[in-house]
Amino acid sequence: MENFKEKLTKVEAMVFDVDGVFTDGSVSPIPGGELFRTYNARDGYAVTYAVSEGYKIFIITGARGELLEKRFVKDFKVTGLYSNIGDKEAAMRELADTHGIDLARTLYMGDDIPDLGALRMVGVPVCPADAAPEVVQTAIYVSQFPGGRGCVRDMIEQVLRARGDWAKHTRALHTTK
Amino acid sequence: MENFKEKLTKVEAMVFDVDGVFTDGSVSPIPGGELFRTYNARDGYAVTYAVSEGYKIFIITGARGELLEKRFVKDFKVTGLYSNIGDKEAAMRELADTHGIDLARTLYMGDDIPDLGALRMVGVPVCPADAAPEVVQTAIYVSQFPGGRGCVRDMIEQVLRARGDWAKHTRALHTTK
Amino acid sequence: MENFKEKLTKVEAMVFDVDGVFTDGSVSPIPGGELFRTYNARDGYAVTYAVSEGYKIFIITGARGELLEKRFVKDFKVTGLYSNIGDKEAAMRELADTHGIDLARTLYMGDDIPDLGALRMVGVPVCPADAAPEVVQTAIYVSQFPGGRGCVRDMIEQVLRARGDWAKHTRALHTTK
Amino acid sequence: MENFKEKLTKVEAMVFDVDGVFTDGSVSPIPGGELFRTYNARDGYAVTYAVSEGYKIFIITGARGELLEKRFVKDFKVTGLYSNIGDKEAAMRELADTHGIDLARTLYMGDDIPDLGALRMVGVPVCPADAAPEVVQTAIYVSQFPGGRGCVRDMIEQVLRARGDWAKHTRALHTTK
Repeated sequence: MENFKEKLTKVEAMVFDVDGVFTDGSVSPIPGGELFRTYNARDGYAVTYAVSEGYKIFIITGARGELLEKRFVKDFKVTGLYSNIGDKEAAMRELADTHGIDLARTLYMGDDIPDLGALRMVGVPVCPADAAPEVVQTAIYVSQFPGGRGCVRDMIEQVLRARGDWAKHTRALHTTK
Repeated sequence: MENFKEKLTKVEAMVFDVDGVFTDGSVSPIPGGELFRTYNARDGYAVTYAVSEGYKIFIITGARGELLEKRFVKDFKVTGLYSNIGDKEAAMRELADTHGIDLARTLYMGDDIPDLGALRMVGVPVCPADAAPEVVQTAIYVSQFPGGRGCVRDMIEQVLRARGDWAKHTRALHTTK
Repeated sequence: MENFKEKLTKVEAMVFDVDGVFTDGSVSPIPGGELFRTYNARDGYAVTYAVSEGYKIFIITGARGELLEKRFVKDFKVTGLYSNIGDKEAAMRELADTHGIDLARTLYMGDDIPDLGALRMVGVPVCPADAAPEVVQTAIYVSQFPGGRGCVRDMIEQVLRARGDWAKHTRALHTTK
Repeated sequence: MENFKEKLTKVEAMVFDVDGVFTDGSVSPIPGGELFRTYNARDGYAVTYAVSEGYKIFIITGARGELLEKRFVKDFKVTGLYSNIGDKEAAMRELADTHGIDLARTLYMGDDIPDLGALRMVGVPVCPADAAPEVVQTAIYVSQFPGGRGCVRDMIEQVLRARGDWAKHTRALHTTK
């Protein structure tokens, strides 16, 4: 049976939920109708770097709004953002069809009950350290990092390290020291 | 004597304070005169799901403002929001009269001294892990989760689980795995 | 020699710094030029209650702005707010003169080096659990609670409890239970 | 071989990254296109005090915007702010040329992979307690404090204490007590 690292080597797309994954689940209503969310700069670096290296990164979330668009589309340039999603399974099917993604080779990270269906559709269902118990049961890997505190970085690093792509432009610096 | 789970089975309404229950008690003044508050997406899922299953959920709070209305009325569609409340006992009586609620079958979760009167009026007074000592003394159950970090989700899950209503649409997923 | 509780019994004014005392020291610049600060609702209850019971509560801070005014003057109705203060010793002298306060019977809570002068002027210098080492050395009492996480509530509760004034309107509720 | 304290005594410039150093790495998009960041008032005091004592303090960051300018230029009056920087090594060279700084006598504090090049250019590369593993390997000193929770204050205090400049205006207060 294939181990987790072998599965990571074959991953061809990574799909992340937002609340409780990119964030610690905190949402704060602000004037104008948007929700204020807090992201982590080191997660952001990992997403930006992975995208620049040609990795496919998608967001599927019940959240919506311009602030979300700005973060994921303008700042991170993710491969696809599916926002305002009620049925995440349908969104996963659309994502797979549109982008020609093999779900068996897809990593999905979610933290709560609305993610259960999508988690069961993919070959690499994972979750943050502080996911809901139902999600922990469904995941094949639980990051040691909670939502908003490094779980996205953890998965991207692991996928890229499995192929020798993590921090490759700075590696010379390490070895020559 | 009836145990806690039996009491939960008979609960017909759940009433929550906001500051220190739905939040960790943090409030941040922002331009325009409103207070910025931080909620938890997993509490939000529980409220939305419980309301969609027909449970009666009320908010009684000293807080006020459009951001509060948006969160609880527009986003969560709670059964009733009593905001800007000085006397929570009077609000509880009005709530019971207006909605025909039996207070003996009502759960109230509060965290501080202004909640003491309301807590003593109900059959199921509960509080977050980090409630004020006077409140901990008055509650019959102290959630293991503090305000803003899961105590609302904890109570809603327990009430719904006591009736087999928690995560029932996704249960098949678990059992077939 | 007088013990700490005896000193508290004689306190006739309480003076608090803002950053690191009412907050955890976090400040966030926002559009318009103000700083966003996060307060604690339970500290807020203690201040409002103490003021309503006739206690004199002052704020001396290097901070400034409308959001600060709103919080302390409009919401809390503190006895006096000295904002935008560079020299806290001078502000303490002005406060004592203007309000006829005996500094020997004044409690001052601060957390950092700019508070050292004011702390040394009063009879009851106290600080949060996470104050700077120089401040911890100067204080006669270190709250077990850090800034923004209960240290203000702790001091107000202790002063009011020393006179039997804490939670006195709800005490009947406790004893009759 | 020179020890760390000796190196600190010779430091003639301190350079800090922003996200993950002055902050815990949290960034929150807000309407208008800026990112909301949370700073620490005690770090702020240390920067302001060091600048007033004639120390040279620089910021090199990938971040940008008016809120950043306000914090570092208007509030802290840092010696130089290099914002919106993609290549931190080039920025370090420009900084050294423009301000006549000897990089061998420069302290640089960064937390993530984009800081590795700059860290290797200076004589005193340091990092927060929670820096990325690659950065921890490169630093000669790891602060016991994480980003946004005292690591900037720690380094400034250590540099100023090494020369007897820390809290020198309040020292009399301590010794006469």
